[in-house]
Amino acid sequence: MRLSKLNHKVAISIPLCYVTFNVKLRIKQKVIMMNVWRIEQEGYEASEAADSGNRFLIGNGFVGVRGTLEEYGADKQVALNLAGIYDRAEGHTWREPVNAPNGLFAKLEHMGNIIKHKQILDIRHGIHSRETMYEHAFLKIERFASMATPHIIHQRIIVEPKNPVTLICGIDADVWDINGPHLIDIHSQGGDVLNVSAKTHEKNQPISVCETCDKAHDEIRNMGHSVFRVFYITGRFVLDRTITINAEAVSTTYDVALEAHKSIWEKLWRGSAVKIMGDENAQLSLNYSMYHLHSIAPRHADSLSIAARGLSGQVYKGAVFWDTEIFLMPFFTRTEPHLAKKLMRYRINGLDGALAKAKAYGYNGAFFPWESQDGGVEGCTDFNVIDVFTNRPVRTNFRDKQIHISGDIVYALCQYMDWTGDETLWKTGGMTLAKACAEFYLSHAYCRVGSNVLEFTDVVGPDEYHERVDNNAFTNRIAAYTLERAGMTYPVRKPRVKNGVIEQFDGYFRLEDCSLDVVKSRLKDEREYWGTVNGVAFTTGIIKQADVVTLLSLFGEDYPMEIKKANLAYYEPRTEHGSSLSACMHALLFCETGESELAYPFFVETAEIDITGKSKQFAGLVYIGGTHPAANGGAWLTAIHGFCGLKVKNGELQIAPRLPGAWEKVTFTVILRGVEHRVTVTKDGWDASAYPKD
Amino acid sequence: MRLSKLNHKVAISIPLCYVTFNVKLRIKQKVIMMNVWRIEQEGYEASEAADSGNRFLIGNGFVGVRGTLEEYGADKQVALNLAGIYDRAEGHTWREPVNAPNGLFAKLEHMGNIIKHKQILDIRHGIHSRETMYEHAFLKIERFASMATPHIIHQRIIVEPKNPVTLICGIDADVWDINGPHLIDIHSQGGDVLNVSAKTHEKNQPISVCETCDKAHDEIRNMGHSVFRVFYITGRFVLDRTITINAEAVSTTYDVALEAHKSIWEKLWRGSAVKIMGDENAQLSLNYSMYHLHSIAPRHADSLSIAARGLSGQVYKGAVFWDTEIFLMPFFTRTEPHLAKKLMRYRINGLDGALAKAKAYGYNGAFFPWESQDGGVEGCTDFNVIDVFTNRPVRTNFRDKQIHISGDIVYALCQYMDWTGDETLWKTGGMTLAKACAEFYLSHAYCRVGSNVLEFTDVVGPDEYHERVDNNAFTNRIAAYTLERAGMTYPVRKPRVKNGVIEQFDGYFRLEDCSLDVVKSRLKDEREYWGTVNGVAFTTGIIKQADVVTLLSLFGEDYPMEIKKANLAYYEPRTEHGSSLSACMHALLFCETGESELAYPFFVETAEIDITGKSKQFAGLVYIGGTHPAANGGAWLTAIHGFCGLKVKNGELQIAPRLPGAWEKVTFTVILRGVEHRVTVTKDGWDASAYPKD
Repeated sequence: MRLSKLNHKVAISIPLCYVTFNVKLRIKQKVIMMNVWRIEQEGYEASEAADSGNRFLIGNGFVGVRGTLEEYGADKQVALNLAGIYDRAEGHTWREPVNAPNGLFAKLEHMGNIIKHKQILDIRHGIHSRETMYEHAFLKIERFASMATPHIIHQRIIVEPKNPVTLICGIDADVWDINGPHLIDIHSQGGDVLNVSAKTHEKNQPISVCETCDKAHDEIRNMGHSVFRVFYITGRFVLDRTITINAEAVSTTYDVALEAHKSIWEKLWRGSAVKIMGDENAQLSLNYSMYHLHSIAPRHADSLSIAARGLSGQVYKGAVFWDTEIFLMPFFTRTEPHLAKKLMRYRINGLDGALAKAKAYGYNGAFFPWESQDGGVEGCTDFNVIDVFTNRPVRTNFRDKQIHISGDIVYALCQYMDWTGDETLWKTGGMTLAKACAEFYLSHAYCRVGSNVLEFTDVVGPDEYHERVDNNAFTNRIAAYTLERAGMTYPVRKPRVKNGVIEQFDGYFRLEDCSLDVVKSRLKDEREYWGTVNGVAFTTGIIKQADVVTLLSLFGEDYPMEIKKANLAYYEPRTEHGSSLSACMHALLFCETGESELAYPFFVETAEIDITGKSKQFAGLVYIGGTHPAANGGAWLTAIHGFCGLKVKNGELQIAPRLPGAWEKVTFTVILRGVEHRVTVTKDGWDASAYPKD
Repeated sequence: MRLSKLNHKVAISIPLCYVTFNVKLRIKQKVIMMNVWRIEQEGYEASEAADSGNRFLIGNGFVGVRGTLEEYGADKQVALNLAGIYDRAEGHTWREPVNAPNGLFAKLEHMGNIIKHKQILDIRHGIHSRETMYEHAFLKIERFASMATPHIIHQRIIVEPKNPVTLICGIDADVWDINGPHLIDIHSQGGDVLNVSAKTHEKNQPISVCETCDKAHDEIRNMGHSVFRVFYITGRFVLDRTITINAEAVSTTYDVALEAHKSIWEKLWRGSAVKIMGDENAQLSLNYSMYHLHSIAPRHADSLSIAARGLSGQVYKGAVFWDTEIFLMPFFTRTEPHLAKKLMRYRINGLDGALAKAKAYGYNGAFFPWESQDGGVEGCTDFNVIDVFTNRPVRTNFRDKQIHISGDIVYALCQYMDWTGDETLWKTGGMTLAKACAEFYLSHAYCRVGSNVLEFTDVVGPDEYHERVDNNAFTNRIAAYTLERAGMTYPVRKPRVKNGVIEQFDGYFRLEDCSLDVVKSRLKDEREYWGTVNGVAFTTGIIKQADVVTLLSLFGEDYPMEIKKANLAYYEPRTEHGSSLSACMHALLFCETGESELAYPFFVETAEIDITGKSKQFAGLVYIGGTHPAANGGAWLTAIHGFCGLKVKNGELQIAPRLPGAWEKVTFTVILRGVEHRVTVTKDGWDASAYPKD
């Protein structure tokens, strides 16, 4: 019975049909060819630039380059999205990350119509390329955001003309912004070095893009603040360009830079690759997920985190959510602990912002931002949704009441410490942070008259459709965890349990119990927001995303198997999975209950999300498209902790294999307390060898 | 400055121009003539039947007869509205009071066009009449709901024909219902006695209307379940009809019955009349307000209360709100204490319903219904408003979170006891009720960790536009009062005060502070509901009605004069006065601060509300028109406690005169602890004589 409920999910992978080494995915009548390290898309569809921009993203943690074509402009959502640089534009109440002028701009003139076109992403090495056969010329352009020198993006343009054509390339200063403009005092300059420099509107931070190339141009062309080189081409022409962002202009050799770049990618894969025997589709989507994680990890910084939409643009204000702590930290903690440490250092350095936020609301301790921007300042507003019927902003309570965020951070910090054995973070701010979060919870808590049991009332749990609830089971547990880890002993209200089902919050069982279809049928506008008081889900038991299921995934040891089964059976059919954080928590818990076949479709959904582009694009009238790092992290979590059943007990690595149908064998690598474990898992056994890391 | 803010209120009385003994009021191009005991309206306007139905209402506490014309049917909102009999129709989740078949139906045939028409209400004796000059006949019909025998309504029909006409009169079984039908198994019968009998749908309660008359009919005519007598009239014709509801059919003599009826009205006025010298307009509207209070008071019952819309129909489900305790009880306690006792007995007898409601929500003690119906059962649903944009019901929290209702009842009970000195109510259930309400508050309260101060979180205060607030100042105070009176000593959180202004609830001062006009300008539909999360008021400091001002009116002794002034100055401009409970609390408090001239327009608004019909007709898509007993009670409160400054200190009656401009002298009567005090108040003095009551 439960399987039939899940059938609609299985359908997501139906368009995938296997061709020897390739996977063909049909999306909106377009065919995407893939093998485990490569994606190809044929056909020139300017109207789908937004989708491709996410699907073909490259990045190196410092900058994300959307997978748009070189000739595209701001109207096609081109972006060189900069990590950790935020700006508040005139007339706006919130910040968003800054996009740099597009130094990668390039286009042919006099080339005639397009005969054939494809776009390729090498996900092993983070190299984007496009090949276009025009009537009068063949054009190939390759680009990569250097993993070796993060401020630099390299581009190689190859033109093979049949008739004379003109190449225009340079820096397009017409930047795409969702809530901009962010750049002021823009100056541009042509010469051996092209340069567009500007300052951010709010804080006057300098933004500068330089370009050098290895050929002399025929002409410089200026258009507004943009500056271009012009080459008149009559024979085969190869141009290597070096784009430098916020650094001195440099000239490098393309092939040398590419080798350096590739060798870092190879190193990353050596430390993290997961090999799945028997399921090429899963191998591809897992590789693709991990590709995204590697591309957006801030290796260049000492203290920086990852935005909820990675480096794919300005959606969600480029802010850091609990996604990092709960969905990304496991991957980095186990494969690149020094990077996981940077992510947590970002939170420790953001403690002042969290103290200030708590104080502003009248609480003690640290209330971390729901949407953390530079320096840990809250970027979330009181109005996260635009009502489709009135066009008025709707008061949401994500900022002021989603208090589990502080506990999520303590959880990740302690998981890092427990896994790595590294106590330096804890000793240099981590413990202070944990205690401050515990103080926050203590000051937020209420007790009934004559009772000493803490209750957390008027909160928003992971299921954001039910705002302002009392004693959300997940929130209470993460608060209790925080108090424990901070060394404070207080009893915390336990959730009510009815026939094994944990009540998501006080009174949840009194809500209208109806199906997802019934709730959908009440929509008057497909873009309308399901949550808050006027939303169709609010008065029903239909939830946005894993909530109790997340509790059971994170705190599995609290509950026996039958409770987990009962809650999956109850909540899954009542879950919209309207968040990309939902599927992987279900996948993980289905593995936990030994139901790998039920877990599998959720794994596929999680792992394929940025290939298919099948995710929610709107919350009310607010655009929320982009890439989904948390789902990417969730894919790895499901593969390793779910299907392979990785656990640590008493400092020892343990494996409880529960590989799904087609999976014959999985090999992977994790670093536990300084020791690299290379693990092989089969359906009914496992093996690991340990190598001390230096 | 404050005066200019209030100018829009003064405007309400501008249409009133004085003509010796009459007042002319222009409403929608119609002229209403009034003197202090009489209202006349000329012109036959069937389209305004709803308005006139309220304005010309008669009643005797057992039945309310809407002021519609005798020839009108269900489509014109004719109603014989029965007190305390409720029914839930098929397919509905709530009950509403039952309307009886209309035994007063009468119409002429062959009478030609209308030449002249007027409708008259004698508010001294509760007699409705209409006089219509047709082409071929003059018709006068008089009716009154007997104060002497409440089950009976009398009607006298006078026809003076110029040419032969036909009179059809009888019982119209086509009953007007908002959410009906409520009557099943309808049977009718013609003969000497006409009868329509039926049962209510839900509980099979018998409803029976009989009619007798003093002339032999020419014919009986049946139409559906309706049954009529037919008289062919050629000369002057007088017919006296007796309509009996839920009792044996009786034949009485009209003139004898009228004298008995009038003598009771005279007795009521002897005990309650307020004479205002110098302001005839105020005299009329106060008389009119008291007329309504007398007409709906359930003198026939031992334990019954008054619905928020009196006996004017089914609006607000005929339910009893806090209106009775806070706005009506003062009048009855001081002029007719035995009646006040019946109103409170209704609550004491409803304790079981309140205990059950508290239990269902997981609380101890007594949580009284927000909308109390028969036996004290909650009639309020979770959805009180229909959203105008989606036509979907909106989740409101009146039922589950407007917890001040329990305290309001304890307050009224104690005020009754303190004023009358009668402890029998307290000893026969009152104390039990008060203790149960205190237990409810104790179980609802939360304390901060390590504190013993009670906080009342997640409540709705009198200002219903801001739902789910913490520590509403009024709610906390009435809860503290309840605990005190129940003999339980607990500290309760005091409100924050900023520059003398009491914060309505935690965080109120953080809301957007904008003008009423700005909020109005954001409306997209004039009927849309201002409250709950999506409403235009919710995120602003604009409030629906007196909230802190009600606190200061009820608990004036807690606060010095300058605090009262500061709060009036702050809150009045931020109040929509979207409830008929708002104006009189402002009037009272302005009197308290010695600003009678500022109080006056609010008094006029309160006292005239059911004459002008200028009140809110819709909340979202829900019709809320009808009469306004709370405003009627508020008019008396303002005149006596406001302008005359009546107080009791140490069992002694005290007067602090603050008569407004035109008022030269006021005389009134109150009964204090069994002694009738006849009081005369002038601008600068007062006098009282005491007469022990038997």
